[in-house]
Order: sequence, then structure tokens, then C-alpha cells
Amino acid sequence: MKVALAQLNYAIGDFEENPAKIISQIERAKKDGADLVVFSELSVTGYYPHDLLEKKEFIEKAENAVERIAGHCNAIAAIIGAPRINEGEKGKQLFNSAFFLNEGKVQYVQNKTLLPTYDIFDEYRHFEPNKKFDIVEYKGKKIAITICEDLWDELPTANEFGKDKLYQVSPLEELSKLNPDFVVNLSASPFSYNQEGWRKNVLINKAKRYQLPIFYVNQIGAQTELVFDGGSVFIDSRGDIVKEMRYFNEDYLVVDMNDIGSQQLQPKTETIEKIHDALVLGIRDYFQKMGFKKATLGLSGGIDSAVTVALAVKAVGAENVRVLLLPSKYSSDHSIEDARKLAENLNIQYDILNIQSAVDEFEKALSPIFKETTSDVTEENIQARARGIYLMAISNKFGHILLNTTNKSECAVGYGTLYGDMNGGIAVLGDVYKMDVFGLAHFINREREIIPENSITKPPSAELRPDQKDTDSLPEYKDLDKMLFSYIEMNMSPKEIIALGFEENVVRKVIRLVNINEYKRFQAAPILRISSKAFGFGRKMPLVARY
Amino acid sequence: MKVALAQLNYAIGDFEENPAKIISQIERAKKDGADLVVFSELSVTGYYPHDLLEKKEFIEKAENAVERIAGHCNAIAAIIGAPRINEGEKGKQLFNSAFFLNEGKVQYVQNKTLLPTYDIFDEYRHFEPNKKFDIVEYKGKKIAITICEDLWDELPTANEFGKDKLYQVSPLEELSKLNPDFVVNLSASPFSYNQEGWRKNVLINKAKRYQLPIFYVNQIGAQTELVFDGGSVFIDSRGDIVKEMRYFNEDYLVVDMNDIGSQQLQPKTETIEKIHDALVLGIRDYFQKMGFKKATLGLSGGIDSAVTVALAVKAVGAENVRVLLLPSKYSSDHSIEDARKLAENLNIQYDILNIQSAVDEFEKALSPIFKETTSDVTEENIQARARGIYLMAISNKFGHILLNTTNKSECAVGYGTLYGDMNGGIAVLGDVYKMDVFGLAHFINREREIIPENSITKPPSAELRPDQKDTDSLPEYKDLDKMLFSYIEMNMSPKEIIALGFEENVVRKVIRLVNINEYKRFQAAPILRISSKAFGFGRKMPLVARY
Repeated sequence: MKVALAQLNYAIGDFEENPAKIISQIERAKKDGADLVVFSELSVTGYYPHDLLEKKEFIEKAENAVERIAGHCNAIAAIIGAPRINEGEKGKQLFNSAFFLNEGKVQYVQNKTLLPTYDIFDEYRHFEPNKKFDIVEYKGKKIAITICEDLWDELPTANEFGKDKLYQVSPLEELSKLNPDFVVNLSASPFSYNQEGWRKNVLINKAKRYQLPIFYVNQIGAQTELVFDGGSVFIDSRGDIVKEMRYFNEDYLVVDMNDIGSQQLQPKTETIEKIHDALVLGIRDYFQKMGFKKATLGLSGGIDSAVTVALAVKAVGAENVRVLLLPSKYSSDHSIEDARKLAENLNIQYDILNIQSAVDEFEKALSPIFKETTSDVTEENIQARARGIYLMAISNKFGHILLNTTNKSECAVGYGTLYGDMNGGIAVLGDVYKMDVFGLAHFINREREIIPENSITKPPSAELRPDQKDTDSLPEYKDLDKMLFSYIEMNMSPKEIIALGFEENVVRKVIRLVNINEYKRFQAAPILRISSKAFGFGRKMPLVARY
Repeated sequence: MKVALAQLNYAIGDFEENPAKIISQIERAKKDGADLVVFSELSVTGYYPHDLLEKKEFIEKAENAVERIAGHCNAIAAIIGAPRINEGEKGKQLFNSAFFLNEGKVQYVQNKTLLPTYDIFDEYRHFEPNKKFDIVEYKGKKIAITICEDLWDELPTANEFGKDKLYQVSPLEELSKLNPDFVVNLSASPFSYNQEGWRKNVLINKAKRYQLPIFYVNQIGAQTELVFDGGSVFIDSRGDIVKEMRYFNEDYLVVDMNDIGSQQLQPKTETIEKIHDALVLGIRDYFQKMGFKKATLGLSGGIDSAVTVALAVKAVGAENVRVLLLPSKYSSDHSIEDARKLAENLNIQYDILNIQSAVDEFEKALSPIFKETTSDVTEENIQARARGIYLMAISNKFGHILLNTTNKSECAVGYGTLYGDMNGGIAVLGDVYKMDVFGLAHFINREREIIPENSITKPPSAELRPDQKDTDSLPEYKDLDKMLFSYIEMNMSPKEIIALGFEENVVRKVIRLVNINEYKRFQAAPILRISSKAFGFGRKMPLVARY
């Protein structure tokens, strides 16, 4: 049997483009003499449609698309993912289903059993879990169809408080009793740089334990915050990865089960390169799927905006990036020069607008009200917000989406001005700790100096008051990032973090800053997720907690 | 048997105050000779702690609090709500549990069976559903303990696409087989003005069907967006509500089952008064639980800011409200006069700051860049953002929380400036349609004119350009609100809304505006929820959907 794997990038709710893409790969696989072509989870709707699933019209459109696609399945079978109405008397309205299409119609439907409802996953909100297991017989082969989490009944956990057996059922255990010849898994599994390898290990372990080959098809592409990285694989019954598809790109592959051929793996890459590629794809898809082309941002001469603009140029092209340099009286000459040099290195359009006169105007108008007060964070915020006005004016006037440049370390401790430098359509570095921002800068400069060396080496500063440095009020980023990772990604307690060798008062201060800034993050731009725990949809904290 | 019902307001994660409150009511009930005192769902932690439940330390603190409270249960029993670790090998880490405390210890634990995971509910994210049913025998009575949704296995649905039997089990059906004498329900059920009566009907139907009295204890108080309204009841085995506790206030009641006494119901109130009370409680609790006292906002002379400030004065007191009047060259004299009169009627501190010179400064600086362009929404947004800077300066300098005044109709169609008039710590009217804002204004003015009549009667305008009116680009609010309610609360399709008698092109335009403005709402302030479907946590839409 020849099985084609189609690793595609879908647009949520696009019932023209998604079916068209699927059909074109079915036709291609037909030409290649494939017997079966497999797509990823919810390929018809895009993953994840969230509460669009509560709209009857949306489901009807998905049903029509499935019918349309089935019409092309002659002389070939296909497995696609789509929601399906639960006809039972009880339970949620829908199943998350895999449709086996053959002879022009839907021949079998396998519903998803394990519905991830943690972190960024929210599937039990919309779907009823499957309780029935069956296999598909096709051309003399028995196929066990599973959907993503169905293979993750033994879940690796990041900390001691997590459970490794979240579910009561093991779908593959049930299906293996029916003696399948191979397993198909339709997946939608996002990239997390610190959980690399988990996915492959899960698949390898399942293949080994049940001595079954697995065809695993992941999607690629970004859906606002989530970046799906592809990397679909064919694993043989000994648990060896025989074929591995591309990362962060669409891909297509035919596996002839009678003649597997030699092992074909993707080249190994460093984590920082994967993060780079994930962010570039995240930006590109955000623009493309929002229907926008052009990006703007403010260059401060610092490393965060430098890395962001370099990623943006990679994603949408230098001709689509326009920046502002927005110095105030606290900006050093060096900063302006570094920013200018960066813009020139990248060959992008830039303008310099001094914000001081606008800032002065606000301060003058406020002076009667502020007359008994001393200068504090208020005046710093006015500068950040004046910059925000200029950048949003470019955005509004010319249709550029403003990119936010806040990094995860700042975002965690609330070092950013709401309605100021926290503005933006998408936060490019919001899940990248400062130390990794440095790593990205070096990666970007690997062949030639794009980001001026000075932007990388100078002590980080917001330049909102004279001689300000980030370390005036924060630990060194090397230490801060470790504390934050322990608290956010690892869910460690203050005590456990102190036990790593940090000073108690520093740890308590940092954790307090994380906790009291939920209100700011509530209004932050969506953040491209690259870790196992990003701020945003996958981390829901109450705002008014006393904790 | 004498049963006390304690309807309290909890702070999430406050393991000092919540247990102290619970203990004080236990002591009070003891003095009153009660045999049992019942509290609401997750009373120890506050409802809902979200991902704080993933922190081991948080759960340990909750466990300690349960022990501490149990120590006070001598000569009285109590039922409290708290999370509890799932000791089983499989499943989620926690149960959402009711603890029966007696003789100084935990004597029985009933886990919650039905875990709502829709709209604002997210319980399956953290909890494993219960599968075992048992009753508590206490002083010769058999008590069936249920937690909130456990009585909602037959769920009323708002539209034809919803399912009325979301769950596979009926906990009360199971418990009734054990012949209980009465039912206790620990609840955390938020206010929705358009689902009033649902809750009582569910309880009445259950009491009737199983011929069992029900003690129903709800919490009160707001947790950021959610406003819990109390209204705890005792229902007899015929399904009659015999005792009804206060709405939007803490309350305490002892029911002697041997001598029920006469019916005691709360006075009937109009829906608009309930919305008013919900919003006042929402503001008050947001401030109190955030640890803030003072509010600021901008008064435009329009109805939205007028209603917001009147509610704020009610919630935190006139002495804690300070406003700015921020006219531009487009502000009519009348608007400024109306705003000033309102501030004087409310006896609050106000300042007038003309924004024009700051706006001019921005436009001057941008003019070389904008020289080939014509005036558009960009310039309107600069005004709104300049106002935002002034208001946030007051907020930053003096510690006032900025109240957002956007109403639901505007929020739905995206009529608001991100980082401008969309700013604020909490959006007071974000779930109130414009027509209900008028209703609130009349309610506020029911005894004397607080909001100047002119603010209510003049045609709504953002006053961002000469002679601008909301109806220039939107249908009359009367029609707009109906379309929006049909689309948002009722999940109706465009076709169904057109069938209500609206013009197709208008309906399509309005729905398109709702859909394309998800990106704005993503960054909006948290919204006090008063309806069955508010923007925010309970409505999750993908940003990049093509739909």
C-alpha cells in the first residue's frame, strides 16, 4: 500500500481554501499512485476554531466541505479531519472526527477519544469524547485511525504535581485488540522549544509497544499565538523513524509500505534556529491570514526591537517594513545611531520623530494638577505612550500592523507601559526570555552584522530617565530568566526556586511582580508561543487573586 | 434539624480571610443552635482560581485551611467547598469537592460530578469528574451533597443548536436511589440578566421530581468579570421556594426543618435595577479585591461616561472619584457643560484639560510623513489616544484605576480606539447594550436629575470630527442592539437575523464588523459580565479566522 502524507497550512474557517488545498493534494496523490492520503486534525476547518464551533452555520459549511472533498476520492482514499454533529441524545453537540473517504463518500468516521483541555487546549469545551473503537478495512489492510492526543494517554509532565496519566482510556490499547496493520494519527501539535523530543518519544514508544507502524501527520502554520511546526513522520513497527517531513513548511510525502526505502530525516538544527523559524512563520502567517502585508515598529537602538525588526524583514520582506525612530531627551546618541544603522543594514524605510515636544506638551498641561508631586513612573509612561501614538498613527494611516517588541522577561515582571510599548497587533518576543533574545541576535548576525554589535553588548535600558538600566531594579537577566522559567514553565514554588540558590528576597520580589502584573498581561497583544507555557491563552490566572 | 445557609463574598486565594469568614459563620450558627451550616462552592479558595489550581503550594494552603476550619466544627457540622487531590492513578490532578466537617475533622468528601466547561466555565481544565455517589448520615438524616452544575444535567439552552443534555449522568438520579432526606447544593452561579429564572426553575424541577427539599447556597461578589448574585434558597419537597436570601449582598439564614415558618422571598425588582446592582457590586469588588480605592475616568458629556461615573460613585463613593473633562476643538460647548454639571451633581473632583495643543503637536510632527494623505480615522484616534495619556497620567500619579466607559454595542462593532478610549482597568458597560445604557440612565435619575437630561436625549456622537453622529455609519441603536443580541447571545446565523426583518446588507455589515474586531477585543479591558454571553473569557473566537 502507498500512503501519502499531506502536511499543510490551513486558515481557520476558510471553507474555500482549505478544501481546495486538500483536493489538490488528493489529486496529486492519485497521480503518484497512492492508495491513501492522510491529512491533519481538523484540516477542513483549521485548528483551532474555538467558539466558531458553536455556530450551526459553521458546522454546516464544514459538513458541505467534507462532502465536496469526498467527491474527489475515487481511485484513492483520504482521511481528513472535521467536526461532526453528535447525533446521540446526550453529550456535547460535536465530535472532533476523522473522516475516511472512499468511493466518493464518507465510509467511516472515527471520533477523537482523548480531548486535551489544558494549557492552550480547550477541546472538551466543544467536543464529546469518543467511546467506540473500530478499524477501517481497506485494500486488505486494517487501519487504526487516531487523532492527536489519542496517542498521548501517557502524558509526559513538566513537574511533579502534574499527572502522567490524565485519561481513563488508552485508545491504542483498545484499537490494538482489533489487530490493525498500521496506525494513522491526524495531529495538530504546536511547537514548544523546551518540549522538543516529547512528541517523537510518544510516537516511538507507541509503535514499539504495539509493534505497529504509525503514519503521523501534523499541520504547519501559525494561528495567531500558536505555531504548528509540522515534522510529520512515518515510524516503523520497531519504533524507528524512517521518514521525517519538513519543519515550519508545508510538505508532502508518499510512503510505499512494500518498499519503504532508506531513512530520510530532516537535518538537525539548534534550538535557537528553531525558535527563529517559529517566530518568522508566526509573523508571516499572522499577516497573511489577517490579510495584511506591512509591518511597523519603533526602533530604540536596543536589542528587542532590533531582533523583532530582523524577524519581521525575514517574514514579510524589507519592502513591507517601515519603522520609526522616536528619541526623547533621554535617548543616547548611540541608541539613535544604532537604530539608524540597523534600518540601513536591513534596507528598510525609516523616519526619525523626536517625541520630546509632545511629551513636554502633556507635562505642561498636567503641571497645575501635578504641582505638588515629584517625577515618577508617570512621566516615563507618558514618553512610552507618546511613542505609541506615533506608531499607531503610522499603523492607522498606512495600514501597517504594529509589531510589539516586549520580551518574556519584561512581560513577566510588568516592565512595560500599558497603552505604550505594550501596544501591537502581535507580540513577537513575548514568549522569548531576554537571554534567548541575545541568542536570536547572535543567530541573526551569524553571517554578517545585521544588528549593530553595540545593541547587543550595551547594558539593557528603557532610556526613560537619565542613566536608567534594567538592572537598577531587576536581577541580572541570566538569573531573572532562570527564576521566571522555574516559576512559569515549571510551576515551582517560591521555596523550590530559592532552593536553586537564589536569594529569598529577590525570588519573592520577582514572583510578586509576576503575580501583580496579570492585569497588564490581560490587555497585552497576542504572543507568539514557542515554549510550553506562554503568557496568553494557555495560562489563565485570575486578576483579583490575593496570592 | 436546623440548617444555616451562609452566603458570602470570597477573595480568590486569600487563605487568611476566606477561612476566617467561614469560621465566623460557623461560630454564629453554633450560637443560633444550628446543626449544620452550608457554604458555597470552592468557598475556601474563592471561585474560580483558574490555573492557580496547578500550583502545588496553592492546593496545600487550601488543604491546611480545610483542616483549620474543621477544627471549629464541634457541636456543629459544616459543608465547605475546596479542591482536593485525586489520589487515583489516573485522571486530572484534582477534584472540585464538598467537605463535610464534623467532630473537628473531615468526615466525608463528595466530589463534583458535572464539570461545566462552556462559556465562562472551565472546570474540566482542572478537575476530574466524580463517579461515586454516596450520602452523609448525620443526626438521623441522610444528606445528599451536590455541587452547583450537579443539578444541571438537564441544561436549558439558548438556541436550537445547543444540547439540553450535555452530560451522561444525572447525579441527583443516582443520589435519590440512596433515599436522602434532603439535598444540599454548594453553588457558584453568576448573574445573567437574560437567564433570570433559569436557576430557580432548575431547582424547583429537581425538588418536585425527586420530592426532596433543597438547600441551595450561592456565593456573592465579583471576581474581575464575573458577578455572583447570591439569591440562595430553601425549596421544600413540593418545589416551593420557602426562603430566598438577598441578591448582591452577603446574607445568612437559619432554616429549622421542623418548623419552616412562613415564606420569605426577596422583593421583586426590575431587570434594569438588577443590572445596576450587579455593576455597582462589580466595580466595588474589583477595587476592593485589587486593593485600590480611587477611580478616574473622562467625562465627555455623553451618556456612557455619565452612567459609568454615576455607578462608580455608588460603588466607591464620591470622595474616591476624580474625573477629567478633555475637550478638543470638536467638543460642543453643550458637552462640556453637561459633563461639568454631572460632576457637580455627583459632587466629585474634576479638572478640565484641553487636549487640542497636544493633538496639534502630534499632527505637526507627523505632517512631513502624512503630507500626501487626507484626514481620516488616524486623526480621530490621535484625539482618543491623547485623552488616554491624560487619564493614565492621573491613574499613574495618584493611584486611581481608570474606568472604561465603552458599551457593548460599540465594543461589538469595534467603535472605539485601541489604546485610547478602550483603556481602563475594568470595563463597566462592556456587557451593556446601548439601549440598556439609556435604561440605566433613567434608573439613575429615577429620584432626581443626576445625569443631565441633555446627555440622555442628544444623538450619540464620539465628537471626533465636526457634526459626527453614531448613526452616520451605524443603524439606530434600537435595531443594532437587536441584531447584536441575536448574533452574540443567541448565536443566530446572518440568514436568521435577516429573517427577523432587517435589511440584508445592514445585517451583513454589522456581523462583519463584529467578526473583524476580535483583534481589538483581544486587548480590551476585562468586562463586567451581566449577560449570558459577554465579550471576554466566555467567548473565545480565533483572531485570524476567515469567517
